[in-house]
Amino acid sequence: MINKEEIQNQMIQAVETVRQTNPMAGSITNTVTINFVANAQLAVGGSAAMVYLPDEGEFLAKAGGATYLNVGTLLPIYEQTLPHIVKVLHNTGKPWVLDPVAVGIGSLRTQLLQQFKDYKPCVIRGNASEIIALAGLWGLEGGTDLSNVRGVDSMDSVITAKTAAVALTKWTGGAVAVSGKTDLITDGSVIVFSHGGSHYMEKITGSGCSLGAVVAVYATAASPFIAALTATAVYNLAGKRAENKVDGPGSFQIQFLDELHKATAVDIANNPFEIEEV
Amino acid sequence: MINKEEIQNQMIQAVETVRQTNPMAGSITNTVTINFVANAQLAVGGSAAMVYLPDEGEFLAKAGGATYLNVGTLLPIYEQTLPHIVKVLHNTGKPWVLDPVAVGIGSLRTQLLQQFKDYKPCVIRGNASEIIALAGLWGLEGGTDLSNVRGVDSMDSVITAKTAAVALTKWTGGAVAVSGKTDLITDGSVIVFSHGGSHYMEKITGSGCSLGAVVAVYATAASPFIAALTATAVYNLAGKRAENKVDGPGSFQIQFLDELHKATAVDIANNPFEIEEV
Amino acid sequence: MINKEEIQNQMIQAVETVRQTNPMAGSITNTVTINFVANAQLAVGGSAAMVYLPDEGEFLAKAGGATYLNVGTLLPIYEQTLPHIVKVLHNTGKPWVLDPVAVGIGSLRTQLLQQFKDYKPCVIRGNASEIIALAGLWGLEGGTDLSNVRGVDSMDSVITAKTAAVALTKWTGGAVAVSGKTDLITDGSVIVFSHGGSHYMEKITGSGCSLGAVVAVYATAASPFIAALTATAVYNLAGKRAENKVDGPGSFQIQFLDELHKATAVDIANNPFEIEEV
Repeated sequence: MINKEEIQNQMIQAVETVRQTNPMAGSITNTVTINFVANAQLAVGGSAAMVYLPDEGEFLAKAGGATYLNVGTLLPIYEQTLPHIVKVLHNTGKPWVLDPVAVGIGSLRTQLLQQFKDYKPCVIRGNASEIIALAGLWGLEGGTDLSNVRGVDSMDSVITAKTAAVALTKWTGGAVAVSGKTDLITDGSVIVFSHGGSHYMEKITGSGCSLGAVVAVYATAASPFIAALTATAVYNLAGKRAENKVDGPGSFQIQFLDELHKATAVDIANNPFEIEEV
Repeated sequence: MINKEEIQNQMIQAVETVRQTNPMAGSITNTVTINFVANAQLAVGGSAAMVYLPDEGEFLAKAGGATYLNVGTLLPIYEQTLPHIVKVLHNTGKPWVLDPVAVGIGSLRTQLLQQFKDYKPCVIRGNASEIIALAGLWGLEGGTDLSNVRGVDSMDSVITAKTAAVALTKWTGGAVAVSGKTDLITDGSVIVFSHGGSHYMEKITGSGCSLGAVVAVYATAASPFIAALTATAVYNLAGKRAENKVDGPGSFQIQFLDELHKATAVDIANNPFEIEEV
Repeated sequence: MINKEEIQNQMIQAVETVRQTNPMAGSITNTVTINFVANAQLAVGGSAAMVYLPDEGEFLAKAGGATYLNVGTLLPIYEQTLPHIVKVLHNTGKPWVLDPVAVGIGSLRTQLLQQFKDYKPCVIRGNASEIIALAGLWGLEGGTDLSNVRGVDSMDSVITAKTAAVALTKWTGGAVAVSGKTDLITDGSVIVFSHGGSHYMEKITGSGCSLGAVVAVYATAASPFIAALTATAVYNLAGKRAENKVDGPGSFQIQFLDELHKATAVDIANNPFEIEEV
């Protein structure tokens, strides 16, 4: 099993490479949190770009080091854009991060998420309910037909998604990050529990989306597993630090962006986590 | 006539129920202020979800305790989504809040707002010009053909919309909230004037939209009239408190979200208001 | 050549007229920064409104004193809306500002930007790469086929866009603003270099877009050249002041809006700049 120090060294490497190279990770994402997503990507040292049209999505997929796809607020054009972009990503071997927001709502969302199965995202990030429902949609172990998704909120705790998360990594060959009070990240061989964060994260919109987009930034410079863990760690660190300085959710989101920007590579790698074998 | 203490007790009840139950109030709303709308709903203790497609709108309408419909930035798909969702809301008896932003601009906006007449929103929130123009569009007393709407700004003062507001409540059986320096809320039998707020509210985008969405949050737990009044009161309270702590519109919007989150039920109920019979 | 004092007097006039008249400058703009764009327009004393549909765009074009068109995140409807709105603007002689974001990406973007050539925006604002690429697309001097556009970021320095910027003004009869570390503004007869700003401007999304939209606000009350220079000056001033008060990009964007709001006309006119003949 990979040891903690080796993981931390790779995390430091990922953070520093991103800060030195300002890599672009394009997104197709929802209109609710699109601004926060872009600002979070910039705060950690990446570059952001968002589009809607199929050929523009293809351009971003090819030009970027990784891509973030979030199905939050589907528009009709997504029916053409998303299948096209995942094919381009798959054919070019570029990493991409899937955020299966509100899986189970609506026919287009279901159809798109089913199509994505064959194009294997390098990282899947969601709350426990979404991870379980996606595994169910893809016919994998730990999944269920009975989605507990309520809009964008999770009704399940992180640990209940463990089997589904591992099954998804076995299928994709990548990593899964399950967001919750304690976050679970797995590559199918080890499971990491990452600690920190803030109760304010549920009181602002976009902490989940922007985390997925920051995973994509790190995926330009690290393995899927290290990218998912590094993004989760900087979120837990910045969330905890920001909470200590504010007394409301408005101030929290601003302070959180500041802390994302200020966190050092070493502090990110030292944010508390535990490893166990699957 | 309902007395002040009874109103205040119901306001306290609404605030506390929302904080305890975290009710979901889905929205179809404009892209300009969609993030602020979601964050305001979360700040008062609600849960937010936004979509564009017809079947997803139907899901949210059924899953949520109330729904917020804002016609600010219409997209072509709205022609299908909005009529579908108001039928679902009407058939299921679910409360919904209408924000007739910029009524009078464009043919689709006019067509949709005309269609809404038969589906009777439980609360209509707008500035004076919008309330007068909507009453005119619906052929009700106090309305006028000569819209004074200039983009999203009001050219009329709140009191000029009194007759139109009352006429709208007579038609819908619900409540109307007219936003201005002093806010007017009526259920057709009493009129309340709610005081407070801040001059900065006109210097940030989204104070009106997010107020409508917060009305929807309270409409999951209270009558249309109490929902409209409670949302207006917490806005006036938070606006006043925020203004005292900042010296610019950027800081104001952040502090305002903090104050929405921190306001107690009793403070909200005690925010100054006067009642008169219609 | 126009002297510095005359320029400064016109800048003061522009700032004061806007603050006294609260002019509306409508926008068709991208979903990433649309909220920040609106808030920046409000912070300097203007009024904002955004739409997507052709007839609504026509309404805004006619009702507003100037219009801001940003091709950042194209939706399918833009194929109808943007050509329609530029014709209306041209026929009514209303000023409009073009932000050719990411010129070179995708076929619709290229097609629209080519069509715009005949409708002559009064101000074009972009980074150096975008200005050079637009001049190339329009077959003007200083332009190039080899776009150095990488998503929304510039790979070129401001001075490399000087010939292209001047060529664009010769064609449009208006002004061009090239954003960079030092900003270049030209009307084809003089070139102004405006100083200030902050390194944080590249660490938040929307500093460029919102600058273009603020140019449109000032274009309701001043010549294209003065509008472009005044907007650039208040951005450089507010950026510098904000940087001194914060230690991260989240706080910067908030403080920046405050400083836009607080800057006096005289301070804006006195923000350092140099003039040279073309």
